[in-house]
Amino acid sequence: MIFPFTAIVNQDEMKTGLILNVIDPSIGGLLIMGEKGTGKSTAVRALADLLPDLKVVKDCPFNCGQGSSLCSKCEETLKKEGNLKYTKKKMKVVELPLGITEDRLVGTLDIEHALKRGEKRFEPGILAEANRNFLYVDEVNLLDDHIVDLLLDSAAMGVNTVEREGISFTHPARFILVGTMNPEEGDLRPQLLDRFGLCVHVTTITDQSYRKEILKRKLSFDNDPTNFAKTMDSEQKALKKRILSAKRLLGIIKPSEEIFQSIVDITSPLNLDGHRADIVIMKASRALSAFRGKDKIEKSEIRDSAALALKHRLKRLPFEDIRSKNEKLQSLLSGI
Amino acid sequence: MIFPFTAIVNQDEMKTGLILNVIDPSIGGLLIMGEKGTGKSTAVRALADLLPDLKVVKDCPFNCGQGSSLCSKCEETLKKEGNLKYTKKKMKVVELPLGITEDRLVGTLDIEHALKRGEKRFEPGILAEANRNFLYVDEVNLLDDHIVDLLLDSAAMGVNTVEREGISFTHPARFILVGTMNPEEGDLRPQLLDRFGLCVHVTTITDQSYRKEILKRKLSFDNDPTNFAKTMDSEQKALKKRILSAKRLLGIIKPSEEIFQSIVDITSPLNLDGHRADIVIMKASRALSAFRGKDKIEKSEIRDSAALALKHRLKRLPFEDIRSKNEKLQSLLSGI
Amino acid sequence: MIFPFTAIVNQDEMKTGLILNVIDPSIGGLLIMGEKGTGKSTAVRALADLLPDLKVVKDCPFNCGQGSSLCSKCEETLKKEGNLKYTKKKMKVVELPLGITEDRLVGTLDIEHALKRGEKRFEPGILAEANRNFLYVDEVNLLDDHIVDLLLDSAAMGVNTVEREGISFTHPARFILVGTMNPEEGDLRPQLLDRFGLCVHVTTITDQSYRKEILKRKLSFDNDPTNFAKTMDSEQKALKKRILSAKRLLGIIKPSEEIFQSIVDITSPLNLDGHRADIVIMKASRALSAFRGKDKIEKSEIRDSAALALKHRLKRLPFEDIRSKNEKLQSLLSGI
Amino acid sequence: MIFPFTAIVNQDEMKTGLILNVIDPSIGGLLIMGEKGTGKSTAVRALADLLPDLKVVKDCPFNCGQGSSLCSKCEETLKKEGNLKYTKKKMKVVELPLGITEDRLVGTLDIEHALKRGEKRFEPGILAEANRNFLYVDEVNLLDDHIVDLLLDSAAMGVNTVEREGISFTHPARFILVGTMNPEEGDLRPQLLDRFGLCVHVTTITDQSYRKEILKRKLSFDNDPTNFAKTMDSEQKALKKRILSAKRLLGIIKPSEEIFQSIVDITSPLNLDGHRADIVIMKASRALSAFRGKDKIEKSEIRDSAALALKHRLKRLPFEDIRSKNEKLQSLLSGI
Amino acid sequence: MIFPFTAIVNQDEMKTGLILNVIDPSIGGLLIMGEKGTGKSTAVRALADLLPDLKVVKDCPFNCGQGSSLCSKCEETLKKEGNLKYTKKKMKVVELPLGITEDRLVGTLDIEHALKRGEKRFEPGILAEANRNFLYVDEVNLLDDHIVDLLLDSAAMGVNTVEREGISFTHPARFILVGTMNPEEGDLRPQLLDRFGLCVHVTTITDQSYRKEILKRKLSFDNDPTNFAKTMDSEQKALKKRILSAKRLLGIIKPSEEIFQSIVDITSPLNLDGHRADIVIMKASRALSAFRGKDKIEKSEIRDSAALALKHRLKRLPFEDIRSKNEKLQSLLSGI
Amino acid sequence: MIFPFTAIVNQDEMKTGLILNVIDPSIGGLLIMGEKGTGKSTAVRALADLLPDLKVVKDCPFNCGQGSSLCSKCEETLKKEGNLKYTKKKMKVVELPLGITEDRLVGTLDIEHALKRGEKRFEPGILAEANRNFLYVDEVNLLDDHIVDLLLDSAAMGVNTVEREGISFTHPARFILVGTMNPEEGDLRPQLLDRFGLCVHVTTITDQSYRKEILKRKLSFDNDPTNFAKTMDSEQKALKKRILSAKRLLGIIKPSEEIFQSIVDITSPLNLDGHRADIVIMKASRALSAFRGKDKIEKSEIRDSAALALKHRLKRLPFEDIRSKNEKLQSLLSGI
Repeated sequence: MIFPFTAIVNQDEMKTGLILNVIDPSIGGLLIMGEKGTGKSTAVRALADLLPDLKVVKDCPFNCGQGSSLCSKCEETLKKEGNLKYTKKKMKVVELPLGITEDRLVGTLDIEHALKRGEKRFEPGILAEANRNFLYVDEVNLLDDHIVDLLLDSAAMGVNTVEREGISFTHPARFILVGTMNPEEGDLRPQLLDRFGLCVHVTTITDQSYRKEILKRKLSFDNDPTNFAKTMDSEQKALKKRILSAKRLLGIIKPSEEIFQSIVDITSPLNLDGHRADIVIMKASRALSAFRGKDKIEKSEIRDSAALALKHRLKRLPFEDIRSKNEKLQSLLSGI
Repeated sequence: MIFPFTAIVNQDEMKTGLILNVIDPSIGGLLIMGEKGTGKSTAVRALADLLPDLKVVKDCPFNCGQGSSLCSKCEETLKKEGNLKYTKKKMKVVELPLGITEDRLVGTLDIEHALKRGEKRFEPGILAEANRNFLYVDEVNLLDDHIVDLLLDSAAMGVNTVEREGISFTHPARFILVGTMNPEEGDLRPQLLDRFGLCVHVTTITDQSYRKEILKRKLSFDNDPTNFAKTMDSEQKALKKRILSAKRLLGIIKPSEEIFQSIVDITSPLNLDGHRADIVIMKASRALSAFRGKDKIEKSEIRDSAALALKHRLKRLPFEDIRSKNEKLQSLLSGI
Repeated sequence: MIFPFTAIVNQDEMKTGLILNVIDPSIGGLLIMGEKGTGKSTAVRALADLLPDLKVVKDCPFNCGQGSSLCSKCEETLKKEGNLKYTKKKMKVVELPLGITEDRLVGTLDIEHALKRGEKRFEPGILAEANRNFLYVDEVNLLDDHIVDLLLDSAAMGVNTVEREGISFTHPARFILVGTMNPEEGDLRPQLLDRFGLCVHVTTITDQSYRKEILKRKLSFDNDPTNFAKTMDSEQKALKKRILSAKRLLGIIKPSEEIFQSIVDITSPLNLDGHRADIVIMKASRALSAFRGKDKIEKSEIRDSAALALKHRLKRLPFEDIRSKNEKLQSLLSGI
Repeated sequence: MIFPFTAIVNQDEMKTGLILNVIDPSIGGLLIMGEKGTGKSTAVRALADLLPDLKVVKDCPFNCGQGSSLCSKCEETLKKEGNLKYTKKKMKVVELPLGITEDRLVGTLDIEHALKRGEKRFEPGILAEANRNFLYVDEVNLLDDHIVDLLLDSAAMGVNTVEREGISFTHPARFILVGTMNPEEGDLRPQLLDRFGLCVHVTTITDQSYRKEILKRKLSFDNDPTNFAKTMDSEQKALKKRILSAKRLLGIIKPSEEIFQSIVDITSPLNLDGHRADIVIMKASRALSAFRGKDKIEKSEIRDSAALALKHRLKRLPFEDIRSKNEKLQSLLSGI
Repeated sequence: MIFPFTAIVNQDEMKTGLILNVIDPSIGGLLIMGEKGTGKSTAVRALADLLPDLKVVKDCPFNCGQGSSLCSKCEETLKKEGNLKYTKKKMKVVELPLGITEDRLVGTLDIEHALKRGEKRFEPGILAEANRNFLYVDEVNLLDDHIVDLLLDSAAMGVNTVEREGISFTHPARFILVGTMNPEEGDLRPQLLDRFGLCVHVTTITDQSYRKEILKRKLSFDNDPTNFAKTMDSEQKALKKRILSAKRLLGIIKPSEEIFQSIVDITSPLNLDGHRADIVIMKASRALSAFRGKDKIEKSEIRDSAALALKHRLKRLPFEDIRSKNEKLQSLLSGI
Repeated sequence: MIFPFTAIVNQDEMKTGLILNVIDPSIGGLLIMGEKGTGKSTAVRALADLLPDLKVVKDCPFNCGQGSSLCSKCEETLKKEGNLKYTKKKMKVVELPLGITEDRLVGTLDIEHALKRGEKRFEPGILAEANRNFLYVDEVNLLDDHIVDLLLDSAAMGVNTVEREGISFTHPARFILVGTMNPEEGDLRPQLLDRFGLCVHVTTITDQSYRKEILKRKLSFDNDPTNFAKTMDSEQKALKKRILSAKRLLGIIKPSEEIFQSIVDITSPLNLDGHRADIVIMKASRALSAFRGKDKIEKSEIRDSAALALKHRLKRLPFEDIRSKNEKLQSLLSGI
């Protein structure tokens, strides 16, 4: 039994960051930084209940979709039979355990099948399961370097290709990467940091009335999870509905020239590496507008999205204060 | 033959910490810190004799219970046959050896079965055995990092999922983690430290009459363990009975609003990471009240529990003295 | 769907460096240095669409060509049957993943074949696939030392020889090495650095109108890649045609004595290691002339090529400023 | 041919330490520290000849005894047949080589049996052989940490449990640990140090007449070991007899209240870790009294035993001199 | 197609060093030190075309010769059949790749043969192929220490003995070791340094007319290697003939007493380690005389050879200048 | 073909050290320290020709002898058949390669036999071959620590016991350890240093007439080894004869009381670790007397032997000069 998403007290930035990625999976995921015990993992796992259905090829372990690129087997089927059968499957949160091996991540040879029938078959890994789903890494800063490289490879290409002992298999691997980390336990490689579309910081709540509320809800949930879930049911349903509406609205919103200008007005003076931030702000503000029920992007959404998209991308020069960087960002945001 | 729990001289805090976890297994375990030779391991092992029975599914190696989540096989049986057969099994203390391998901890493929019958079968590991039992790690600060990660993963999820060469198996893995360590031999990773609900320190006893008593009892036990056990028999039985009563009382106790307030009055000013401490104090004070035969929580139980729940969670700022932190805690405890 | 090469905004030096290697594959590849997010990988991958056809032996996994050295199997066939059958195959960009193993790089024994038929067979690796193609290494500065050694061995010999458990197999392995790297994440071994014929630096574009254009194009591409590709179609075709013309022109251009003299006039005073730079400048300026539609090399092409060929080869003496080195280069270039 | 124990010149403390462990195996072993070439190994190996017989279950590779805990197989036999057959076996000195593997130490799966009969069988390791015997580790300070952990686990539990690929086997593993080490080659982990009941230091003998005697005996032994052994025969026999008498006397000696008091009078002021020293002094002084033919413990035995039991347990505070610690011990010993 | 040896511009010392080793293979090889890109590898590979034929036992993979020690198999054949059949084989340059494994270097068990016929057979390694040939190690200073040890073992013994899983095989392994290295990338172990008979330094050529010539020749060769080789054909043939004459002359030259004296006059004052330099100078000057068509050694050959044999053997004392060492050598050479 | 022992110019101490070990193999081996190129390896290998025959059990791969302890198989045969058949075998110099594995050193399971006949058999390692022979380790200071431990274990016990997967095999392993090392390349572990009975230093010869002689002999040997060996034949035969006489004389020499006293007069004041030096001096001086044809030990032999036995055992105190230690030794030697 999972703690309900809507029962999480406060922590609005984290919740928004997750919801935006549900609305537009191409935003590029979310990194949640914060001390231990602040409910980071709880929030990510709770997200599962809010996720919409995916249209997927029937019996395809790689969740191949319509119009998207196909796995080796679906391509074969399509060529042979001319069409593919589809079914519905709930989108989910796939967890990547810290101690994962390369074989389990990218997939490998099915030994049983090979021994029994003398023929090789591909056994899908977690990247297969994660295609078009959320991929969650707890303590992402402790992940083995070799695994990080494999993740980055797949994230960059959107495709996972495995070649082992004569087998070659390719399948799409477009996942929404969500990571949580406690910054006290080590930094993240800059390259991996940059891959996360958005980033939020969560802190322990000190307000006593909120603390009591958190304590009460946790005790209620521990004593009787089923009953507790019932009390949150209508809130959960309302949120699910709002997310679905936002997804539909997304295709309608067209950014104006002024919006393009506002974005580069913010990012150009910041001395960022590369152009990835621009596109993330654009997509996040579009999704945020849709979540707020608007059919166009306004500057308030750009401001709110830029805060999520830029904080982990600010470069500090030697002897430069991180605070002055943040102030510069704030003045840029209020200036548009 | 194990040294009887009630024959342990002094060390009341350690004994209370263990007993509270028997009464409410959701408190989150116990960390015992102390010099070598102070009887830490003896106490944990002695606990075995005091443990109550568990209601478990017959022949289920994962100790699946009624109302709790089920292992893959029990779920299958339940679906096929509509109900499950239950039996009783004594709760136990499972030891986690330092040199354990990943395979042995989480379970693995049964090779013999695979070779003989050409079909794969899951072979349960120590996490299976530990489900709903105590899991004891001696010298927990020397445990391999990789194993710690696996333990934390399971502890966080309450579930162990193994996927190897085509087998996928899930079973509940809710264990009460008890660790002992000598702080002279290295620290504990902060993240693991935080997972222990309670923490006690034990020290060598210097009082000469106690020392003589310890020496006499140990000599008696070594000379004739069976006879020594007999002399402690009635004390052991009385303690077992008291624990069972406390477990029954637990469901009856409802914390008042004042109790909620007292807890956050203590924890809010302490600058702790996250909200885990609040819920631990609540549960520990409830169990302590029950052990003392009360049907409601009073401030004295909160004070005694908070001492066990907070010491290992106090963060020291640079240049801040650990003593001033403890004084602050003491003044907070006496202030409620 | 790949982002079109001609839709890349600015970054002319990088684009020229890639195109010159298409025109004359013996120039020796290209190293692209720059911050993350500057479109380095996008450009290399986009190159694929511009590549010409290769004439290769039919069904040869090593892309053996006419007049070039042959693989062990083609040599056998040629000896037995007196001639070889040829076909056409599009030149391509082969990617070298960071975590590649030696087996996968150089090829290995085909286990399935060995088990089924009791006879050994060579299974080609990435060096086989890369023969006469581009070989792309993202983050080349993070490549494992052992793999770098194997790459350098093959690059130096133009041949890959594998000897494993009784199998001996040789095939040509002449690839165009393209590497990208972020200099903030570590240097490149001098020896590997020297192997790259040319080198360019790319930086984040700060001009706001260019930034907006980049953002718009990326958003258009993400929203509807097929439609976006159509809008770039005529530009792509024109560039492909120009490259083919240049390749034809290459055999016609004969460098004059003055050109030889100009090259050593530049390189002699620079205290470079060895003579590799001279030949790279010669070939790059020849290809650049051809790309510009000229039938002879002029000093402007030498100047432009020398800039690409020399920057990564300048040696800095202790206490010597890299800027003064560059100034020396500039004055040498303007002096010819 | 082994050098006779009684032919060892001087080194009385080392010889006493060994003999006390033969008389009462629960004393907890002996650590011998000293320079190379001082005959440490010779003494331990020579001990073998003096050891008494053990009553063991017939054909049990684990030396299961009467009244002690049984191995898995003996328990099965006892359940099935109601009784066990016993035989006599000489107690021995089992050596633990430095390079030992985990498998060989704790036992493993018998591959031959598994392949031939398709059924698994436990193959006993050195811990099996060592049960109820001496376990000797030369250069114990160079032992691999992982092996030390396994030894400590078994030493603490008195039991070795092996679980591998579906086999679970438990057998008693109560051994008398004897270690030798040259302190110049590195320290011992404090935890392992504490496990040794007693500790002695041996030094090179400088007295010329003793040196000559050592040289003569060694030369005689090397020239004709059989003849040399004959010359020592009656001394060896006398010592064996004396040890057997002492073992019988052991059960008769009851420590008086005054003896208990004397022990804590010594240990309480010393700020030792834990209570292990108290019980070791008690048992060693009882064995020493028996070896000296007394039927009660006197203060002289406590003094002599405490010297052996305490030296390696004295904790030195920073800036405190080890000599002042020893003086304190001496004054405590003379004060009882 | 290999670049012709005689087309190499300048670099006479390196060319002489290689040729002397062809004339007398017992000189002990050559170490070529120099910056990258100076044609070191090109020269060693070009040597292949100049090498004479060897008389070898037919079908012997170890190149056993007449009068030299034999491999295990040839010895068996000789014993059984009384004589051996010989054939001619061109001497060659065997390359030792940096990433070589021990198995591939020294040879190993032929698994295929073992599985198919149940009988073991030795599969020769690179040391087999290298017997009586040149063994070339590019970047010899980066060679794995373990491989260096194996090379030194074989070089010292002139024999390679492999014992694996019941197979024992011995074959002669007398190779001419040629190494190239860039001293900027690390030093050579002194012991390996000493094994090279001769040593030369090559540097980048700065003379502009030579640079142009190098560039022109390389461009001609790259454009049409076959045609380029034809233009060098007569020079190549002349050099081969001269080498063959020198080899014949070698047996005729007898060093005079004065020559012996001159050599020790040079080496005695230099404080060298051991006596290896004396014999190298003797043999190199004999080969050099033969190459120059003389039938006796003169002091000019000793001077030229000593320069090649001594530079890498000069020991520098602390605070002693390497230049003063070289001056001492020069004055010793001019003094004989 | 091996360079003859008697053709080695000078280096008398090294030659004596080797010969004494042939005369009395229980002296404990020899360590030869010196610069590269001083003929250390040549001398050890040349020793082979001088070695006497051993009486060994027929077909025993462990060289079991008469009266010595037997291997497991010979013991079995002796028990079954009552006697053993003997044959003669030349004593030899077994080389221990630096890269040796544990399996190859101590022996292992014979896989071929196990697969073919389904029964396990022990395959002897180098320790088997080395029993009662010389075991030579070139560059002994570079030997892997793990291998050193195994060597020391066997050296200490005189026995090699292998237990692997159900096989247990014991065989005598008494070898004469000879090591060579260049002290510039690293020290020797003190414990291994102490195991060598004797130690000599060799240096490069600077006398010009000796140098010429060395050069001439080496050139003659290289030009025609067979002929060169003939010229040394009578010297070789004479030395072999003298060694055999000395071996016979050894049993006759009885050391007088005065001799015992002289030895401890030397060693007692030197503050050595342990008593190993005393017995080594005794045995070496006995062997030296025998080699000199005397039937009793005189002080001159003690002096010469002590020099070989003590130099590597002198302990230097901090701030103490090694020269003053040597002076002390000299004065002690001249004082007896």
